[in-house]
Amino acid sequence: MVATDDRHSPQGESPTFDLSAYLAQRQALVEAALERAVPITYPEKIYEAMRYSLMAGGKRLRPILCLATCELGGGTLEMAMPTACALEMIHTMSLIHDDLPAMDNDDYRRGKLTNHKVYGEDIAILAGDGLLAYAFEVVAETKNVPPERLLQVIARLGRAVSAAGLVGGQVVDLESEGKADITLETLNFIHTHKTGALLEACVVCGGIIAGVSSTDLQRLSRYAENIGLAFQIIDDILDITVSSEKLGKTAGKDLQAKKATYPSLWGLEQSKQKAQQLVDAAKAEMAHFGEKSRPLQAIADYITNRSY
Amino acid sequence: MVATDDRHSPQGESPTFDLSAYLAQRQALVEAALERAVPITYPEKIYEAMRYSLMAGGKRLRPILCLATCELGGGTLEMAMPTACALEMIHTMSLIHDDLPAMDNDDYRRGKLTNHKVYGEDIAILAGDGLLAYAFEVVAETKNVPPERLLQVIARLGRAVSAAGLVGGQVVDLESEGKADITLETLNFIHTHKTGALLEACVVCGGIIAGVSSTDLQRLSRYAENIGLAFQIIDDILDITVSSEKLGKTAGKDLQAKKATYPSLWGLEQSKQKAQQLVDAAKAEMAHFGEKSRPLQAIADYITNRSY
Repeated sequence: MVATDDRHSPQGESPTFDLSAYLAQRQALVEAALERAVPITYPEKIYEAMRYSLMAGGKRLRPILCLATCELGGGTLEMAMPTACALEMIHTMSLIHDDLPAMDNDDYRRGKLTNHKVYGEDIAILAGDGLLAYAFEVVAETKNVPPERLLQVIARLGRAVSAAGLVGGQVVDLESEGKADITLETLNFIHTHKTGALLEACVVCGGIIAGVSSTDLQRLSRYAENIGLAFQIIDDILDITVSSEKLGKTAGKDLQAKKATYPSLWGLEQSKQKAQQLVDAAKAEMAHFGEKSRPLQAIADYITNRSY
Repeated sequence: MVATDDRHSPQGESPTFDLSAYLAQRQALVEAALERAVPITYPEKIYEAMRYSLMAGGKRLRPILCLATCELGGGTLEMAMPTACALEMIHTMSLIHDDLPAMDNDDYRRGKLTNHKVYGEDIAILAGDGLLAYAFEVVAETKNVPPERLLQVIARLGRAVSAAGLVGGQVVDLESEGKADITLETLNFIHTHKTGALLEACVVCGGIIAGVSSTDLQRLSRYAENIGLAFQIIDDILDITVSSEKLGKTAGKDLQAKKATYPSLWGLEQSKQKAQQLVDAAKAEMAHFGEKSRPLQAIADYITNRSY
């Protein structure tokens, strides 16, 4: 067999790092691990409901980020995989509950009917609860990682989801709906909590598992903060500029719901510029880690380049 | 000051152990710890909603069981208190979500309006999610307990709430509603999962924190199984025999909803006998621990003697 550079070529900006091949390979690993983590057993309906949303595709960006920072810090994929799966379970729980009639009332997600449209509201609420609780069990049972690190990961995950994180962001988001006079401060609070906190947990937990220094954890945290906000700004932009069909969910929903967005505060052009600045800042944090940070640099670029 | 036996007298069967004084003292400790664990901060609404249900009274039997088994195993109250609080947070989450319109649709709980009646369904869902996630953070941050034990506790808690526990039991309960032909096997599955799994976690986690042997953990587990089922049988009996006012929730609801209950399968008298047998079996498991198990013996008795 001849070693070739085929894997390291086309699309990406860099001739030596092929992000799409990297993402596809990691995505397959994560899907396989999730598949193993949630087998169907009695009572089947709840496992099917959990799997319906958990295995509904998506780019698996959160678990991939966790795996990437663990490797960056010198850890292995095996060490980070349970936490990576837990992060996807938590993310899925937040989507299932967000889509409920009492919350965003969405019928479609990633082009498929939402969980409660298929299984009913009661099962959807329970599927979310089940995924959230199970996520912590999965992390706690990780092999070959020092227990102290796993406890740190669990504490971070708990905080990222609780009222100090995702739940708090969601509450302010709900309170702000229909309000015309929302401030940039409030909008930032919503996004740094609703989506940012879990993204930060993905990036930081990979580092914790690998045992990186607290200075490096801070670098990872700033990287995550920057790409998290950039991610949200791009999401807001796509909601305006892309059709429902391509988006896989109802487009223009933010406008309809009179939700405050970055484009509504800054306009489209300035929003795009701001997202680019955030991505540049994220990449600057990674410079310290040198060549090893190629995947994380490429993922940062990918966030502003993505389209549906 | 003269030492008197005043604290150790009236009500209980034993002249040397005053269960009501014991419960009252432990309850006060737990309430104070919960009070400290969930301060109100921005966004206030979600913290208020979490506290509304968390601080709504109740006997705090679950955390008290956890504290008791930790002391039985030679541990301190301080070691078990974070887990005890986490157990009450998880229990509260399950009540908030159970009461939702999409689930049991209850307007009252412990004589107060249910969470969603006060804060709305969206906030009630999020308050549950927030309490569940925070519970794991609280356990992970426990001081002065070996990390390996805390990971075991977290894994047990996760399993007790997930589809393998509480959530699974709730799903089968929902599926069984209105069915006349429910089997004893199904009814047992519902209760060993819906209420039993968390009760077992309370009892077992106290032992894990104290570092008891696996044989003793099994004893604790059997104790928990027995009192858990007895507790449920008594709950079913009270639903039939006690008025709504005294119960603090709508009485006769099981009958109305055509829910299968132990009295509906066995009749009232046989149900009472069965509950007593289970309590006796639970107490027999405790005999091994001698005098130290007085509180747990008394709690087992209390379960069949309780009335509202």
